[in-house]
Amino acid sequence: MIVVMKTSSRPDEISRVTKRIEDFGLKAHISEGVDHTVIGVLGQVFTELRDALELLPGVEQVLLVSKPYKLASREFHPRDTVVEVKGVAIGGKEIIVMAGPCAIESEEQLLLTAQEVKAAGATVLRGGAFKPRTSPYDFRGLGETGLKILAAVGKENKMPVITEVMSPDQVDLVAKYADILQIGARNMQNFILLDEVGKTRKPVLLKRGLSSTIQEWLLAAEYILAQDNEQVILCERGIRTFETHTRNTMDVSSIPIIEKVSHLPIIADPSHATGKWYLVPPLALATVAAGADGLLIEVHPNPDMALADGPQSLNFDSFRLLMSQLSPIAQARNRQLATQSAKSKH
Amino acid sequence: MIVVMKTSSRPDEISRVTKRIEDFGLKAHISEGVDHTVIGVLGQVFTELRDALELLPGVEQVLLVSKPYKLASREFHPRDTVVEVKGVAIGGKEIIVMAGPCAIESEEQLLLTAQEVKAAGATVLRGGAFKPRTSPYDFRGLGETGLKILAAVGKENKMPVITEVMSPDQVDLVAKYADILQIGARNMQNFILLDEVGKTRKPVLLKRGLSSTIQEWLLAAEYILAQDNEQVILCERGIRTFETHTRNTMDVSSIPIIEKVSHLPIIADPSHATGKWYLVPPLALATVAAGADGLLIEVHPNPDMALADGPQSLNFDSFRLLMSQLSPIAQARNRQLATQSAKSKH
Amino acid sequence: MIVVMKTSSRPDEISRVTKRIEDFGLKAHISEGVDHTVIGVLGQVFTELRDALELLPGVEQVLLVSKPYKLASREFHPRDTVVEVKGVAIGGKEIIVMAGPCAIESEEQLLLTAQEVKAAGATVLRGGAFKPRTSPYDFRGLGETGLKILAAVGKENKMPVITEVMSPDQVDLVAKYADILQIGARNMQNFILLDEVGKTRKPVLLKRGLSSTIQEWLLAAEYILAQDNEQVILCERGIRTFETHTRNTMDVSSIPIIEKVSHLPIIADPSHATGKWYLVPPLALATVAAGADGLLIEVHPNPDMALADGPQSLNFDSFRLLMSQLSPIAQARNRQLATQSAKSKH
Amino acid sequence: MIVVMKTSSRPDEISRVTKRIEDFGLKAHISEGVDHTVIGVLGQVFTELRDALELLPGVEQVLLVSKPYKLASREFHPRDTVVEVKGVAIGGKEIIVMAGPCAIESEEQLLLTAQEVKAAGATVLRGGAFKPRTSPYDFRGLGETGLKILAAVGKENKMPVITEVMSPDQVDLVAKYADILQIGARNMQNFILLDEVGKTRKPVLLKRGLSSTIQEWLLAAEYILAQDNEQVILCERGIRTFETHTRNTMDVSSIPIIEKVSHLPIIADPSHATGKWYLVPPLALATVAAGADGLLIEVHPNPDMALADGPQSLNFDSFRLLMSQLSPIAQARNRQLATQSAKSKH
Repeated sequence: MIVVMKTSSRPDEISRVTKRIEDFGLKAHISEGVDHTVIGVLGQVFTELRDALELLPGVEQVLLVSKPYKLASREFHPRDTVVEVKGVAIGGKEIIVMAGPCAIESEEQLLLTAQEVKAAGATVLRGGAFKPRTSPYDFRGLGETGLKILAAVGKENKMPVITEVMSPDQVDLVAKYADILQIGARNMQNFILLDEVGKTRKPVLLKRGLSSTIQEWLLAAEYILAQDNEQVILCERGIRTFETHTRNTMDVSSIPIIEKVSHLPIIADPSHATGKWYLVPPLALATVAAGADGLLIEVHPNPDMALADGPQSLNFDSFRLLMSQLSPIAQARNRQLATQSAKSKH
Repeated sequence: MIVVMKTSSRPDEISRVTKRIEDFGLKAHISEGVDHTVIGVLGQVFTELRDALELLPGVEQVLLVSKPYKLASREFHPRDTVVEVKGVAIGGKEIIVMAGPCAIESEEQLLLTAQEVKAAGATVLRGGAFKPRTSPYDFRGLGETGLKILAAVGKENKMPVITEVMSPDQVDLVAKYADILQIGARNMQNFILLDEVGKTRKPVLLKRGLSSTIQEWLLAAEYILAQDNEQVILCERGIRTFETHTRNTMDVSSIPIIEKVSHLPIIADPSHATGKWYLVPPLALATVAAGADGLLIEVHPNPDMALADGPQSLNFDSFRLLMSQLSPIAQARNRQLATQSAKSKH
Repeated sequence: MIVVMKTSSRPDEISRVTKRIEDFGLKAHISEGVDHTVIGVLGQVFTELRDALELLPGVEQVLLVSKPYKLASREFHPRDTVVEVKGVAIGGKEIIVMAGPCAIESEEQLLLTAQEVKAAGATVLRGGAFKPRTSPYDFRGLGETGLKILAAVGKENKMPVITEVMSPDQVDLVAKYADILQIGARNMQNFILLDEVGKTRKPVLLKRGLSSTIQEWLLAAEYILAQDNEQVILCERGIRTFETHTRNTMDVSSIPIIEKVSHLPIIADPSHATGKWYLVPPLALATVAAGADGLLIEVHPNPDMALADGPQSLNFDSFRLLMSQLSPIAQARNRQLATQSAKSKH
Repeated sequence: MIVVMKTSSRPDEISRVTKRIEDFGLKAHISEGVDHTVIGVLGQVFTELRDALELLPGVEQVLLVSKPYKLASREFHPRDTVVEVKGVAIGGKEIIVMAGPCAIESEEQLLLTAQEVKAAGATVLRGGAFKPRTSPYDFRGLGETGLKILAAVGKENKMPVITEVMSPDQVDLVAKYADILQIGARNMQNFILLDEVGKTRKPVLLKRGLSSTIQEWLLAAEYILAQDNEQVILCERGIRTFETHTRNTMDVSSIPIIEKVSHLPIIADPSHATGKWYLVPPLALATVAAGADGLLIEVHPNPDMALADGPQSLNFDSFRLLMSQLSPIAQARNRQLATQSAKSKH
C-alpha cells in the first residue's frame, strides 16, 4: 500500500500517518518527492487501515499495490487447479460441457434430456430444483423432489450432476444429491452461503454477480477457499450494462483475465448471459475460442413449453449442431471436447 | 400482454399463438394491422407464458402492458403506507433520520453515538452486528453480542433500532433484538431471506441492489408483501455505474419514481451511495429535496478509528451541521424533521 | 507518477525503467520495499510515458498521482470562476435558471415562452436551432433562421441567449447570434469543436457526455481553457446506466465533486437527464440542494405539440410552480434565485 | 406503434388520442381489452408523434413495434452487403484483417509495419493521422503529412488504407488519401460528420460509441445510408461498463445480433476494446468465432516506444502468432482468412 500526501502536507501530518501505520504493526517507509511525499506500507494490509489512512489530514490518496485476494491468485498458486468430479476433469486440457434444463420438471423430461445431451457430448448434467425468480409469482422449482430426480437420472446416465443451492440451510440437503454445488449470480456476495459451501468437500461452481468486478468475484471465491475447499470453478454469465438487446452482456474478456490472475478453472454460461437461444451458439464458440475451460448450456426437449427460461434454451437439434461446431474451435486452441476422450474410456 | 406477429406471419402461426394463450386459461384478442397482426392477452399473465410465446414461430415480440408487481403498486393501493415503529412514523409528513455507526464496536461507542445523534435530531438508531464484507479477511461484526448492545442502548435512549439480517437462519435471532430488519443491497434478491423476513411481523428496510432496476426492487418488496408483511420501507443506496469518483452512483430519480408508482415509503442512504463523508451532506439534502421520507446516515465518534467504512462516516460535528441544514430543506418541501414534533411529545 | 515493480523484478529491469524515465527528461526515485520496489517519477508526466512504462518487463502497475487536468483544477486556480454574460453572473451567490424550448419552432413560440419564463424568474433564454437527433428522420431544427429568432427575442426581453453549436464550421455563425455556446453531450469529446469554441471569446456551456467520467469531462473543459477561453460552465445532464425508467441517470454527486476539484461553475439539466417532465421539478430541487449554480430547463407552451422532446418539457404552470419551490431551497443553501436581486436592479 | 390507455381512461381521452394520430395523417385502430384499451397506429411513425402521445391524458404507455431504422435493416435489405475496396471484399466469405499502428509516426515506422503485417496475412493497412485524445496535452497526430505517408505506403504494398476523419471540414482532405474513412467511437453521434461522409462515395467504417445501444449504432449508420452511401462497415470496439480490468467491455453478442438484424458487415477491434495487448489475441479469436467479418488490430514495431496506445499494440511476433491461430477458427466457422485466397491471386 502506498500513501500519497498532499502537496501542502505538513511534517506533523506525515508523522501522524506513520504512527497509525505502526499502530497496526506494520512498517512505514517515507520517500520525499518534488511535489508529493509518498509513504510505502510494508506488510499485510487490511481494508480498515486503508480506510483509516484515507481520512487523516494531509493525505491525498491511498493506492493499493497488492491484490486483496491471495488463495485465488496465480501469484500464490502458479499451477492450474483441475477440479475432478467422478472422472470428469474441469480445468485441464479438455473442454467440459454441462447441459440440461433450467428447471427440473419431471423425471421423463430430465431423462430424455440427459440421454440426448450425453449422446451429443455433454459430460455433466445440470438441472434446477430450487429456482431464484425475480417475481414471487413465478415457478420456484420442485425442491427435494427435483434433487432426487436429478441424482437418479445422473446415476443412470453415469453423469455427475450440478444444481443450485440458494441458502445456507439448504447446503446439507443439496450436497446429499449433487456432485457440484452451484452458487447463482444473485448470491455471489451471500457471504454466509459462501462460508457454508466452503465447509463442504464438494466442488463449487461460482457464478459472477451481475454487477461484480473481477476482483469482487475472486474475493467471493476467496471466501470458499478460505474454508479449505479448493475445488472452485468460476462461471462467467454476463454483467449488467445499458444494452437491452441481450439480458446481460457476456464479458468475454474476463476469461483470459481470470486465466492470467488466477489458477481456478473458468467456464461460460451463454444461456443466461444472452437470454436468447439463437445467441447461445455464437457466444459458446466465442468463449471457448477465448480460452474457457467449458460451458454451461440450457437444453430443453420443448423450449416453448418450459416452465422457466424457455427463450434461452436450445432444443436437441440446436445443441447437437453447436457441439459439432465446437469441436474444431477447441482443436484450434489445442484442446478437445471431453467426450472425445471419455468415449474411449468406456 | 400484447403479442406482435411478424409482417410475414402465417394464419397457422397466429392460430398456434392463440391456442397457447387459451391453454393458459386466458383470452386472446386478434387485431389486424397493415404491417403487423397484434394479439392482446386478457387476464393475469405469468412469465412462463410470455417466455413461451416469444419462442413460437411468427412472433416478432411480446410486450408487457401491466406491471409485474401488484401489492407494491400504487394502482393497487393508492394511499401512502406509513410504517409505525415505537412512535416513529416513516412515510408520513415527517422526515425521519436513522443514524449510528456502520459496525457496533462496543457499548461505549454505541452509547456515545446514540446520545449525540439523538440530541441532533435522529429518531432511529442504526448499528451493524453482522457485516457483509467483500473480503473474507475484513471485520465481520460482533454478532449476537452486538445485537444485545444495540437493543440495550436503544432502550436506554428511547430510540427504535435497526440492524441488518444476512441469512434466513438469523432472522429469528435478529428479530428478537431489532425493531426494524434491514436487508442489505447484496441480499436484495436473496429470495429465501425475503420470504423469511416477510413471515415476521417486523418492519423491513429493503435496500436497492447495486445493479437492480426499480422494477426488480419492487418485485423484491413484493416477496415480503406476499407474506402479508405490509411494513416495507425502501432505501435507495446507489447503483453501480462506470463512474469511479464515488463508490456507487446515487440514483436520486428513483425517489420521485417510487413515489409515483408505489405507496411504500422511501428513504436514502448517502453514506453507502457515495463512500465519502464529504459527499454525504450534499446528497442527504438533495434526496430530501427530491422527496425522500428520511435518511440513513453513518455516524462514528472517530471515523478514522472505525472498524468498518470509516471514510463514509460523519463525525458528530458534521452530523449536527447536516441536521441544521436539513431542516429548511424539509420545510421547503412542506415537511419537517421528526425531532421537531417529537421533542414536543416528551 | 509511481511505478510499482513486480515482486520478481530483476535489477536490470529496474534500470531499464529508470533509463526510460530519464530519456523523457524526468527524474526517477527508487524506493525498496519488502515485497515491491517502487519508483517515483518527478516532473510533468505525459500519457505516452505511462503507456511506455506499463509495457516494460518487470513492471506490475503504474499509478498516476497527479490529476491530468491543470487549468480546470481547483489546486491550480483556488478561487471560484464566475462567468459574466450581459449582467448575469454564473457561479456566484445567485442561482441562475436558463429556460426555453428544446427546439425553436417559430418567433411566436419563442417570444411567448421567453416572456413567461422571464416573469417566473429565468434570466437566460435557451432554444435549439441546430438539433442533434438520434434518427436522421427526425426534425433537425430551423438552422440560421432559428438563430435569428433567438437573438431577436433575447434582445427584446433583455435576456442573454444560449444555443447549441454542433460542428467546427458552425462556430462563427452561432457565435454571431448567441451569448453562450452550448456543447451537447454527444460532442463532449469532439475535440476539434472544443478547440474552435475555445478560440472564441464567448462563454461555453459544456455538457457531460453520457458515458464520461468526471475526469474526462474536466479534460474536455481543459481543451477549451487551453485556448485561453476561461469562461467554461459545466452542465450535468445524466449518465447512461442500466436503469430504464429514466432516459439517463442524473449523477447528483458530480455536483459537489466538481465543486471540490474544480473552480468552474456547474449547473444541472434535469430535462435531458430524466426525459420525463414530472421528474424535472424534484431533480431540479435536488441538484440545487446539492450545490448546483443553476439549472437548464426545457419549457414549451404546449409540450404535447412540441417538435422535439415534448415529454421532458414543462408547461408554463409547472415551470412557475417549480420556481416558487426553488426559492426556499436556494435560501436553505444560503443562496438566492437570480431574479430576486435582478428585480431590484431594474 | 401501439398506445396502451390507462385502466381508468375515459372515452374523451381515447378520442383525443385517435384525433392526434389522424392529425399526423395516420390511421388509428381501437381494440378494447378487459383492463386496457389499446390503440394501434398504422403507417410510418415519427418520434414526434410518439412523444406527443405519451403526454396525452389517459395514456399509460406507447410501445414501438417497428424498428426505427430502415436502410440498415435486414428486413428491408435481406442480402448481405459486401463492401469492395481495391480487390478486398468485406462482408463476404473471407475474414479480413486490417492492421497497423495507432498513430503514423514516420514513413519508416509505417513501411516496416506494412510489410510485416502483409506478410502475416493482413490485407488492409490502418494508421492514424488525426488522433482524438482525451487530454489536450497528448500527441494528436501528424495530420496531412501522415495521410501522405499512409497513401504512399499503402500504394507501395498494394494494400488499401483506412484512417480516421474527425470533423466535417476534414472529410475532403482525408478522402483524397484514404480508401476507407473511419468514424471513431466518440464521433458515432456526430451527425454532421455522418452526413458528410455519407456524401462521399468512399466506404465508411463506423465504430460503435462507448455508450451506444445497438439500435443507436444502426441509426447512426442510417445517417450515412440516407445520403446514398451504401458502403458502411460496422466495428464493435467495446462499451463502457463498471469493470475496470479492461478499458472497455467488448460486447461480443453484438456481432450475431447485427448479423441477424442488419445486412451490413461487422468487424471487431479488440485493441481498443481491451486496452491491453495480451487480451487482443483471445478477443480476436472470440469475435471471429462469434461470426465477425474481420478484425482491426493495432500493430507497432516497438509498442513500448509508441507515441499513442502502446499498451494495446501487438508487436510483430505476437501478430504473426495471432494470425496463425486465427486460420483454424475461421475454418471452424466455414470461412477463411483473406490472405489464403489473396496469395493464390498473385
